[in-house]
This record gives sequence, C-alpha cells and structure tokens, in this order.
Amino acid sequence: MSQSLRRMQYAVRGEVVMKADQLAAQGKEILYTNIGNPHQVGQSPITYYRQVLALCDLPAECGVDHPNVYDMFPKDVVARAREYRKDIGPSGTGAYTHSQGILAFRQHIAEYIQNRDGYKSYPGNIFLTNGASTAINMVLQGLLASNNDAVMIPIPQYPIYSALISKLGGRQVGYELDEDLNWAVSREELESKLETAKSNGLDVRALAMINPGNPSGNVMTHCDIQTLTEFCDTHGIVLLADEVYQTNVYAENSEFVSAKKVALDCNLKNLQLVSFHSTSKGLIGECGRRGGYMELHHIDPYVQSQLYKLASAELCSGVVGQLMTSLMVKPPKKEDASYKLFKQENDNIYNGLKERAEKLVHGLNQIPGITCVPAEGAMYAFPTVQVTPKAIEAAKEQGTTPDNLYALSLLEMTGICVVPASGFGQKKGRVGFRTTFLHPETLKAIDLFAKHHEQFTKDYS
Amino acid sequence: MSQSLRRMQYAVRGEVVMKADQLAAQGKEILYTNIGNPHQVGQSPITYYRQVLALCDLPAECGVDHPNVYDMFPKDVVARAREYRKDIGPSGTGAYTHSQGILAFRQHIAEYIQNRDGYKSYPGNIFLTNGASTAINMVLQGLLASNNDAVMIPIPQYPIYSALISKLGGRQVGYELDEDLNWAVSREELESKLETAKSNGLDVRALAMINPGNPSGNVMTHCDIQTLTEFCDTHGIVLLADEVYQTNVYAENSEFVSAKKVALDCNLKNLQLVSFHSTSKGLIGECGRRGGYMELHHIDPYVQSQLYKLASAELCSGVVGQLMTSLMVKPPKKEDASYKLFKQENDNIYNGLKERAEKLVHGLNQIPGITCVPAEGAMYAFPTVQVTPKAIEAAKEQGTTPDNLYALSLLEMTGICVVPASGFGQKKGRVGFRTTFLHPETLKAIDLFAKHHEQFTKDYS
Repeated sequence: MSQSLRRMQYAVRGEVVMKADQLAAQGKEILYTNIGNPHQVGQSPITYYRQVLALCDLPAECGVDHPNVYDMFPKDVVARAREYRKDIGPSGTGAYTHSQGILAFRQHIAEYIQNRDGYKSYPGNIFLTNGASTAINMVLQGLLASNNDAVMIPIPQYPIYSALISKLGGRQVGYELDEDLNWAVSREELESKLETAKSNGLDVRALAMINPGNPSGNVMTHCDIQTLTEFCDTHGIVLLADEVYQTNVYAENSEFVSAKKVALDCNLKNLQLVSFHSTSKGLIGECGRRGGYMELHHIDPYVQSQLYKLASAELCSGVVGQLMTSLMVKPPKKEDASYKLFKQENDNIYNGLKERAEKLVHGLNQIPGITCVPAEGAMYAFPTVQVTPKAIEAAKEQGTTPDNLYALSLLEMTGICVVPASGFGQKKGRVGFRTTFLHPETLKAIDLFAKHHEQFTKDYS
Repeated sequence: MSQSLRRMQYAVRGEVVMKADQLAAQGKEILYTNIGNPHQVGQSPITYYRQVLALCDLPAECGVDHPNVYDMFPKDVVARAREYRKDIGPSGTGAYTHSQGILAFRQHIAEYIQNRDGYKSYPGNIFLTNGASTAINMVLQGLLASNNDAVMIPIPQYPIYSALISKLGGRQVGYELDEDLNWAVSREELESKLETAKSNGLDVRALAMINPGNPSGNVMTHCDIQTLTEFCDTHGIVLLADEVYQTNVYAENSEFVSAKKVALDCNLKNLQLVSFHSTSKGLIGECGRRGGYMELHHIDPYVQSQLYKLASAELCSGVVGQLMTSLMVKPPKKEDASYKLFKQENDNIYNGLKERAEKLVHGLNQIPGITCVPAEGAMYAFPTVQVTPKAIEAAKEQGTTPDNLYALSLLEMTGICVVPASGFGQKKGRVGFRTTFLHPETLKAIDLFAKHHEQFTKDYS
C-alpha cells in the first residue's frame, strides 16, 4: 500500500482522541475540545440559513408553493428561497452542477470579496468545494509534481497541511512563527528556511499561511501579511491563504485583512495566490454541510485549466454546501423580517466565543507553569506548559512526546480532550496543547487544567 | 505542476461537452445526453426523501415541533424525521460526524446489504463518502504505492478509473469486455492481460468491475461475476466492485447480484473486496447530494486503518449526503401514509427508464450502420457506428479520433451531446458513442441519430 499514506499523520483525530472515545464508551464524561466542531458542543444552527435550505430542497408544491407555507416559514425566507430556486434553475438541488459550482453563487462570493477588499473579484476564478480541506487538497495535487517539491508551512500549523503534503508525496518546510511576537514571522526566518530548503535540493512551490491562526489564535496585521506576500512575490512561490476564520476576530484592536487585499494594496503584480474560505467556521459552524470555496488570483491559466479538470473528475461539490456558502456571503438584509432573530443568534454566538476566548486565556495565564498568548481570533488557545525534566524523561522512555504524555494524563484525570501541540509542530523544547473555546463549559475547565497541572508536576517531580 | 494531473483525461466533461456549452451559450438548443445527471434532464426528486431531509435540517421549533408542521408535512414523514434526529444526536446535521459517517446510518446500510445478499455485513466496514467517486479515489490512494502499481480496468470503462489512476501516478491495464458476448469477459482475457502486465514489470494491485455496466449497460450474471471474483482471489488482487447502478435493471431476465454475494456463495475466503454504491443513480438520481458508501470486505486491517486515517484527514462526508444514503437503503414502509406517492413516483421513473432503454436501443438498431447491444441496466446505450475509411482518414488528418469527429458532427447538426466511445476505451477499430436515456425526449433523438448518420456517411463517402 501507499507509503505516503502510511507516513501521513493527522493529530486532530489522533491517539488522544481515540483514547477519549474509548473512555467515553466506558461511560466517562469527556469534554471534547480537540476539534473546531461547534455544533457538536452545543452551538445552535442559525435558523434563517436552515429555513432557506429546507425550502430550496423541498419540491415546490410541498414547500414554497404549499398553501400553508406562511404558517411555518417567514415571508422573507420564502422569498429568498424563491430567488435561490431561480438561481439554481430547474435541476434543483439534486443535480450535478458546473464543476466549479453554480454560477450565481460564485457571483455572490465575488461580490462579497469585492466589498470586503475593495478590489475586483471574478466568478470564473472561484471554485466551490466540499469545505476548505477539499480545496487545499486540490491545489496541492496540482502543485506538487515530484518528491522534491515542497510547501512552506507555518510552525505551528493546522495539520491538514502536513497530512496532505505527505499523502501527496511532497515535502514540507516549516517556518517558525514567533510566540514572543504574537506569532508573527520575520522575513529573515522565511529567507533562511528557503535557503536551507534549496540547498537540500528542494523546490519550494507554495507557502501556506493561516489567518486568523490555527492553532495559534493570532490575527495577522497588514504588515505581518505583507512580509509573506512580498516574500512569495519575490521568489515566485504560490501563496495559499487559509482564511477560514476571517469572521472569528475578537480582540478590540484586531481586524481581518485578506492576503489578496494586501497583495493589491502593495501592487504585487506577480504574486500567485489562492485563498480559502469555509462554512464550517465563523459563526455558522456548519461543518457537516461541507461548504467552502477557493479564489484563484493570478494563477497561471494552464494550471487553472488543470484544476478545472480535477474539479470535473470529482464532478462537483455538494449543492447544499454550495447553497450554505452563498448564504454565508449573502446573509439576510437589515430590512428583512428575519433579520432580528438572525442578528440575535449571531450576536449570542459571537459574544460567547469572545467572552470564552478572553476568560480562557486569562484563566490559563493564572495557572503557575502555563502561559498563553491572547486568542485574538479563530477558535483556539495554544498554551505553553512547563514540564519537569522527569516528565520529559518519562515520555522518552515511553517512546512518546512530553505533550502527548501530558495530554493523556489530562484526559485521564479530568476528561478534557485536547490535542498535544506536537501535532501542530512547535519550537524545539516547547511543550503545550491546543484547546478550543467552543464548549459552553470551557471556563469550568480552567480549574481542572490547574489541578491537573499541579498533579502532573507533582507526579513527575 | 503535477505531470500526473496533466496526463489525466476525463471525457464525460471533455471536448464535446465544452463545445456543446459554447453552442448553448450562442442560443443553440442542446440535448445533453453526456452525463448521468437525472435531475438536470427533468427527473423529479422523490418527495418523501426531500421532506424528511427538510425536517432533519430545520431547527426543531421551526420543523418537527412547529405547531403547524402537520399542515405541511405528512405524519409519517414527521415521525421518520424524529427518528433520524435521534440517530444523528444533538449535534444535528451541522457537525462533523465520525470519520466513517454516522453509526446509525452505517447500521442501516449493513442491514440493507444483509437483506440483499443473505450474508452478514458490519457497520465497522462501511465508510460513508461524498458519492462513490470519492470512495474510489480513497481506495486507489491507499492501494497505489509506486509508478509500477497497476489497476486492471474494463474496456470500455467509466473514465473516473483511468482519470484517478493517472492522477495518482499509477498504471492502468485494460481487460476487454466482449461486445459479442453481452460485454462479458473471459478468464483467458484476464489471465493474458495480467501476464503481459507482469512481464512489463507492473504489479497489479486491484481490478475494477462495473455492474450494471457503464458505459456498456449490461447486467452481469452470477457466472460473469464469478469469473472476476475467482481471478482476483487466485492472484491476490483487490476487487473493486462499482455497483452504483444496482437498482437500475430493466431487462426481464436480468437481476443484480453483488460481487460480495458471489464471493461468499463461492466460498472465496481470501478475496479482498471493496464495493461502492451511491445516491446519484438508481431512481433517486440525487447527484448533487454527494451521498454514497463503500463496504470493505476482508481488507487487510492495517490497510483499513490507513483508509480510516485518510477519511479523518478529509474530516467526514456531508451529513445530508449521509442522510440521503440512509434513506436510499431504508425507504418508507408499505404501511406508511407516504408510501403510495413514493411508490407512484418511483414507478414513474423506473417505467420511463425501462421504456426508453428498450425503445432507444431498438431505434438505434433500426438505423443502417448503427448496432447496439441491449441496455439491460444502468442509464446508457453504447452503440457501434460504422464509419467510412474517408472519415477515419479525416479524423487522422485533424489529429483526432473518428468518434470524436462523429460526436462533434452529431452535436453541430442535431444539438445532441454524446460522449465519444474512445473516452471510455474500446476495441481497436471500433467507433461509437455513449448516450444516456434519461432525457424524456430521448426517443425523439432516434430520428436525429438516423439523419445525422446518413449525412455523416454521405459527407465522408
């Protein structure tokens, strides 16, 4: 069987999670904080989106044209569903669509991007995909041609990058984000890693950035992004901008800026860029819907035609995910009857995330031996934990990493399931973990984190 | 960029279709028969399925618990949706599921397989996927390790196989189906192709069979399948059984038998088998829903664990597709209030397909110079056309195949969009095309096929 697949690792659903599932099956209560899966931990779906979806799926005579439809659905929802039914056409939600997705939806996305960035966006450059992960997979499939082709990825990174690169038989070149500089990266670090890669005979084809950061939780400034766009522009490296958390920004002085906007603000005419977005994150959290898109910008037309062919061989992304993506970029308007409830639901989710992001990080920083950079955005805190030399030794003896040892011990003592930081990559010698702040009970976990840390330190002193 | 991707071909959305899209954009009326996309050509969705889906997606208070729900939805639909909501759990349809799909749905599938075959099926061996194509992609990713690894595929085949094999950098070894024997294959043909592959230094890892056949439209007998299962069992080759058309059987004396049943009937204890099914075909035709599953049978546990890892890195298949797959294998019961309409809708679709399958093939066979084996199942007729030596020469001069020339000429003269048979592979010297019989206007096309054939023959005489 495939050696590349054999080598592939995917920590978010790795050893600690499997152990948690075992314990759960034995009746132990588990607080899953390992995965950004909002609805799994109690976040409710946004009513408006689900109502529109339902009326798009129902045959007209049982839905929009049913004599009692207004007894169950608000008028503006019915009107919106009618609009969508026109956009989708007579095939409805049950047919394969254009390989890149339904044109009207791609137009909605282009408008959204244009309003966000102030620069033109073209529906022909947009591909609707089954979540961002499928899009990333497609692009990497297109870019990686040989075992010497490499992708630069941030350390720490979201492990879908390392997993897909290794699956595709490519090579990864880590560039370190500096925890002391709010997880920014310097041009020097990028140049030095590229230099080393070249001297090892590697061809760096692409560089991935994740903004807001996963697992690091930082929100990059215009200047932070410029470092990356200029670097990629200079060296002819395709920039992959993972922007799935673009609406998850909580810190007062932070704001999301897209890589495309930075590239165009800086007049970088040669930069080849692919940006990713998803319905799984934000305040929607519709992970199970598998909606998302990528926008190609200045990608070589031949490469683009090959990506189109690839999309065609996978037929099309799910229509319901496509619909959800359009809804995400084109929510109800202020004057719509549903807007009040829509806003209330969104505000509730946003305020909950913001409050927990702040309080969780604050609480973690109160624990002696744990430090955590503020979670300005995304859904994660990524603390460093101090462990004793004895713990490091014990891990070595057990053939594992210190943070795996730590995460398993945390799980067994408290039922909290986190992902060891080594699953994302980190500076040599650092020990830590990633935890989401999605769960409404997140703050109750702070005490458990503290008790466990004390116990773990005692156990290995 | 990737050379493998560059080499990949996917005829179903290839040159002829692009030309058709161009003509359509210029206002020409096109009869698309190139793709098995039922809802695109007027087949209606089954009401019951869509109603259950809508109530699973709607938040309870706007759906199953809405005071007016029974004014819009039949009672049994509401009850069924309530059952599903329990199966799915509090996360609802918006969360990532288990990497293999929701357990209850896998249990439904296992029950369906057990009832169909009379042999045990295990939910742990079932993976829910975004349509069968994703499942095929996953398995091939797992099996193909080097450039010498090969997959035996039928000639003619559904081009997703050749496309994915070439994308993954593997090699294809065609085995010819015999048009004169209703597209069956002999053991001799299989052995001889394997022998040649071996002597070329290839390792044959898997063999794909498609039953009912695409594009060939034949329904394999128990004996036909036995030839393949025994061959794979003998040589330790993994059998990939593409059974997405298992409910599309029209011919009086034909019936679908699964490869798993044949393997177990014949007591083939070593055969490693993966079977695929989908919600895109059958009478459902919900292509845009991206639902499907694969069942692993006797697959090496280590390989299975690696496929699980691969599924995990893709997170999960879309929940709505998972739901549709469960609905497909667990339709309403006879005593349910919705059953009458359900049956009527299914019968209409089935009878239409059956009638068009018979009349289309009959009509094609009436045309001098066209012959077509009966379409016993699936959604396609795959006729042979006789072309003049002058046409063959003209194709050669234009750097194309005779059937590409034929299909483009057919498109331009009549607006009918078919796929040239060379996109599926065929015996040397054969010329033909694949046409679906999904379109309600299919039978009107017979006259056009006849007129065009006469004209084409004249043009190149």
